Amino acid sequence: MHYLDNAATTVVDPELAKLCYDTMLEIFGNPSSLYKPGMVAERAVDHARAQVAATLGVTGAEITFTACGTESDNIALQGAAERTKNWAKNIVVTGFEHPAVYRTLELLAAQGWEIRAIPPDAGGHIDEAAFLEAVDEQTGLVAFMFVNNEIGTLLDPVALAKKVRAKNGRASIHVDGVQGWCKHPLQLSGGEIDSFALSGHKMHCPKGVGALYLRRNYRIGPVFGGGGQERGLRPGTENVPYIVTLGAAAEKYGRSIPARLAGAKKLNELLREELAKRGDITVNSPADASPYVLNFSIPGVRSETMLHFLESKEIYVSSGSACSKGAASHTLTAMRLPAARIDGALRVSFCDTSTEEDVRALLNGLEEGLRALQRR
Amino acid sequence: MHYLDNAATTVVDPELAKLCYDTMLEIFGNPSSLYKPGMVAERAVDHARAQVAATLGVTGAEITFTACGTESDNIALQGAAERTKNWAKNIVVTGFEHPAVYRTLELLAAQGWEIRAIPPDAGGHIDEAAFLEAVDEQTGLVAFMFVNNEIGTLLDPVALAKKVRAKNGRASIHVDGVQGWCKHPLQLSGGEIDSFALSGHKMHCPKGVGALYLRRNYRIGPVFGGGGQERGLRPGTENVPYIVTLGAAAEKYGRSIPARLAGAKKLNELLREELAKRGDITVNSPADASPYVLNFSIPGVRSETMLHFLESKEIYVSSGSACSKGAASHTLTAMRLPAARIDGALRVSFCDTSTEEDVRALLNGLEEGLRALQRR
Repeated sequence: MHYLDNAATTVVDPELAKLCYDTMLEIFGNPSSLYKPGMVAERAVDHARAQVAATLGVTGAEITFTACGTESDNIALQGAAERTKNWAKNIVVTGFEHPAVYRTLELLAAQGWEIRAIPPDAGGHIDEAAFLEAVDEQTGLVAFMFVNNEIGTLLDPVALAKKVRAKNGRASIHVDGVQGWCKHPLQLSGGEIDSFALSGHKMHCPKGVGALYLRRNYRIGPVFGGGGQERGLRPGTENVPYIVTLGAAAEKYGRSIPARLAGAKKLNELLREELAKRGDITVNSPADASPYVLNFSIPGVRSETMLHFLESKEIYVSSGSACSKGAASHTLTAMRLPAARIDGALRVSFCDTSTEEDVRALLNGLEEGLRALQRR
Repeated sequence: MHYLDNAATTVVDPELAKLCYDTMLEIFGNPSSLYKPGMVAERAVDHARAQVAATLGVTGAEITFTACGTESDNIALQGAAERTKNWAKNIVVTGFEHPAVYRTLELLAAQGWEIRAIPPDAGGHIDEAAFLEAVDEQTGLVAFMFVNNEIGTLLDPVALAKKVRAKNGRASIHVDGVQGWCKHPLQLSGGEIDSFALSGHKMHCPKGVGALYLRRNYRIGPVFGGGGQERGLRPGTENVPYIVTLGAAAEKYGRSIPARLAGAKKLNELLREELAKRGDITVNSPADASPYVLNFSIPGVRSETMLHFLESKEIYVSSGSACSKGAASHTLTAMRLPAARIDGALRVSFCDTSTEEDVRALLNGLEEGLRALQRR
């Protein structure tokens, strides 16, 4: 198998799966219970909190565990809107966010918020000047991604946040970090960013756990009602096994960010070089994108047709983001690419266990597929 | 160990833990992905959907997976409020709901909803006439529990819903079924109830998975924004391992409801009889409560003091609901019990693996504790 769709989800690390299993059997108490098995569970959760915090250079008290990146985004965005609604009227956001962000902003738009979405240019970049220009005194919330999930565009969250702050000191700044966490180095200790969402299953944890960084002294109200868990922000009994697993992933992968990044860069460069040799394939990812993602368009074959051809060879790539289930790419549409390029777009995404063999298999598969499928 | 706090959480069934672990390693695809590993994951989720549905006599299409009972309650309650806000003004609810319900209603109260909470009487029952009296033409949502989490009061959801419907045919009817699911028989196929929340970790699944039944043709809007997962109601990549585990739990425990109930009844009766012999202990649970829960007050010793005394003998009970972390009991306060009785309240809760030995150990522990700790 050549699994090259790691931006959709990753294979669970067997070491982490074993830890999760053991935790399931050994730490059974409810962290809210007052006796020892409860406290053991609470301590395990707090240990994981510190482990996740360390990857961002922040403190455990600034980490809230959630069930997924989507939930983290919702708590942050809806909470920020609630926090600023008395004085703010608009929200500034990039035009190529994940649905977890843009659909949540659609809910806020229905409540009366003006959403100012700054689209990417045809090269997949967000015009920083235009983005900052959209921020004014009535901006209550500014949201952008760390790494775009479809084409890999890499933003510098801290630098951009500083510029936003210079224009509006009281707006909330949220970063969807799901595709960048533990893949690209990022330190949030300077406090430029108010909230940052991350997810475990993009980093070899099982699907169903995420976290939300909330800057110390940054207060948002609850979006959910319930018991007081996670300081009331994410009530519901804590998912102790997955939280412990996320903490261990943070510790394990947080240490190897540069080495893994170098590995992804090598594979990305190889793939780019080989695709360039063909001459008929257009790369949609910016040259300075995260090397973990490469999006390109093949000529004369619909991406889903190619996806299924590759699947027959146990090569797995995506025709867009998995969260959109085959719908036309949100990001490529926002880039105003020609329809044919959107129709033929494939996304390849790497992880630390991806190999040159995977890339070679993909290249062979593409070549064979184009020969077999291309309209003549 | 004598774990008698199963209403807080249950020990994970080793068989289910193994299934969860295997699923984690074997079914790694994102259910939204278009290729085979994605479809395998999607089929596993749909199989679990049918398994959970079968326990309630409904169809898989009526089941939405969530991360916990709290999330299920939030989606149902906030969704119902959104659905009815154009014509409705008030919400009718029992006065002894779990925080997942009453805190969510507090959020709705802040939006302008009038919350009509009908308190339990001193015997722990809700006066049905008073409850129905509160329902009028402007009631948009009626919510009540299946089994109260603190004292075990057992309601008949279908019968009560029919009476509510007779007074107001268009109000949404939500039932928090977390403490009753797979413990007491319930068939929702008649369509009297619009939504029903359940949680896995009260039934030997790991903490972090729940479900929400939504009656066919009952439509609520999303509370979260995100990918289209779970028909848009609970976006975020599906927690496949836990969902598969919840499905298996539904199948395993859904079959043995009467036998397990008979077992709980025997233990409950034994405990009640032995407590009655002492003469100084007051039972707070109604006589017709769910046998899985028994709440009683000990004289002259604060419940937390006794809890820790019992803990020293590895006997685990609760001083209230785990979700309230030692705060004064919401239910007993609503029952207007004297402060001394609230201060000395303990909750014992059984599961299918509870034994007569557990009850005997508890009785001995209580006796010893009262001798050692009671103010003289």
